[in-house]
Amino acid sequence: MSDDPAVSNPDFYRVLWENDDVRVLEYRDEPGQGTTPHVHPNTVMVTLTGFDRRLTTGEHSRDVSLPAGTAVWLPAQEHSGANTGSTPTHTILVELKHSVMSSDPASSLGPADS
Amino acid sequence: MSDDPAVSNPDFYRVLWENDDVRVLEYRDEPGQGTTPHVHPNTVMVTLTGFDRRLTTGEHSRDVSLPAGTAVWLPAQEHSGANTGSTPTHTILVELKHSVMSSDPASSLGPADS
Repeated sequence: MSDDPAVSNPDFYRVLWENDDVRVLEYRDEPGQGTTPHVHPNTVMVTLTGFDRRLTTGEHSRDVSLPAGTAVWLPAQEHSGANTGSTPTHTILVELKHSVMSSDPASSLGPADS
Repeated sequence: MSDDPAVSNPDFYRVLWENDDVRVLEYRDEPGQGTTPHVHPNTVMVTLTGFDRRLTTGEHSRDVSLPAGTAVWLPAQEHSGANTGSTPTHTILVELKHSVMSSDPASSLGPADS
């Protein structure tokens, strides 16, 4: 199975456009839905809705709640994500090409602390 | 005067956060407001509202209308921007560090055609 969420989870991820520097994805889901495991390069995620999600990598999970209209740094990571709230998730993901992943997946699960 | 809009136009631009790869700005204005000339590096702009704007560099102007919830590529450029519509502008700008500007400012005014 592909690590690329646009390939492995096309019901949720859609490629809007890309160039030499970035690939821009749109993500949408509904409460109760979730993805299979996939990989993100270093990414800036901009939220268009507020939502509650559980991110999981291996045996590690992290609950994340974000408001609409915010931007977070998602360091390169592998995870699956589930909508654990009562609202749809709608985000734009700006993937930075040529980025590398941390050797410690659990330490980089979800958005960076800010 | 600084080329950096966060310095020259602090009433409209606000730095949300930055790291080694990106600087993330929030832009807000109201109808009738506009900026002084400033410089953007290569940037992905995500719209949180729909808006109408006139972008100007030197003697060249371009009118841009964008819906909410879209992402556009703003190639490195110098411009001033004016809200020519009837709605507030609210966007998130993901600036890519270490990018270079085109030698032809007029050709890169506003978002790239897609």
